Amino acid sequence: MGTMEQRISLIALGVDDLARSKAFYEALGWTGQEVEETVFIQAGGLAVVLWGRAALADDAGINPVPDRTAFAGIALAHNVRSPGEVDEIMTTAQEAGATVTRPAQPTSYGGYAGYFADPDGHLWEVAHNPGFALADDGALTIPNFE
Amino acid sequence: MGTMEQRISLIALGVDDLARSKAFYEALGWTGQEVEETVFIQAGGLAVVLWGRAALADDAGINPVPDRTAFAGIALAHNVRSPGEVDEIMTTAQEAGATVTRPAQPTSYGGYAGYFADPDGHLWEVAHNPGFALADDGALTIPNFE
Repeated sequence: MGTMEQRISLIALGVDDLARSKAFYEALGWTGQEVEETVFIQAGGLAVVLWGRAALADDAGINPVPDRTAFAGIALAHNVRSPGEVDEIMTTAQEAGATVTRPAQPTSYGGYAGYFADPDGHLWEVAHNPGFALADDGALTIPNFE
Repeated sequence: MGTMEQRISLIALGVDDLARSKAFYEALGWTGQEVEETVFIQAGGLAVVLWGRAALADDAGINPVPDRTAFAGIALAHNVRSPGEVDEIMTTAQEAGATVTRPAQPTSYGGYAGYFADPDGHLWEVAHNPGFALADDGALTIPNFE
């Protein structure tokens, strides 16, 4: 009782320009529904929600809204099935206006990954990690490290 | 080709004190695996990763690491099946050391929700939204708004 199940329902990304952000994620291949100045995107078993940064802060009880920072302390990751797919998506993101903060390169764990920032600075890692299984539907399962 | 599937693989939360953060999420009812100063938590079809804030910034190519901000511009949400469950989880979080930024209250969409910040300021909304279906496994499906 009173505890959280181990799952996440939504990720709300505060944005400065909803149309710009919607266009950016559409350029990455995502589609969503725009409702009352909010874009809802189904992402597997959860929703990504694009919403005005000030509205999100107000909803969360954060007032006044602080200035933005260059590093929010959070990164989202999108894992794929091959190093080549990492390169393809990094290229698509850059063409869509993303800032590449770390070009794709081999990782210490035997994978291959890069990072980009979306138009509002939200960080995305695009990674191929052969140790983390991806199901056909894209669900990721953490290995047993023991 | 070159586009992203509509799914998210991991959410990395940069933290100042891994032991403190691990204890916090355990108090919420979550369990993870600690590997090389990183905690991996299976959360539905994705992973929540607790990792040192500076290490995450460095991995993402953000250097030097900027000061923290009071509002990162991102909120995660955990949707539940009743208003009572919202209250229970908000209480558990507060007892675990969370800061309640917005006490649970009725929402404009006919739901009930509150927000808390974890020990590093990462925002969580705990919400009951009768319009957003939750499957038995907790997967959330966005309704058709048309």
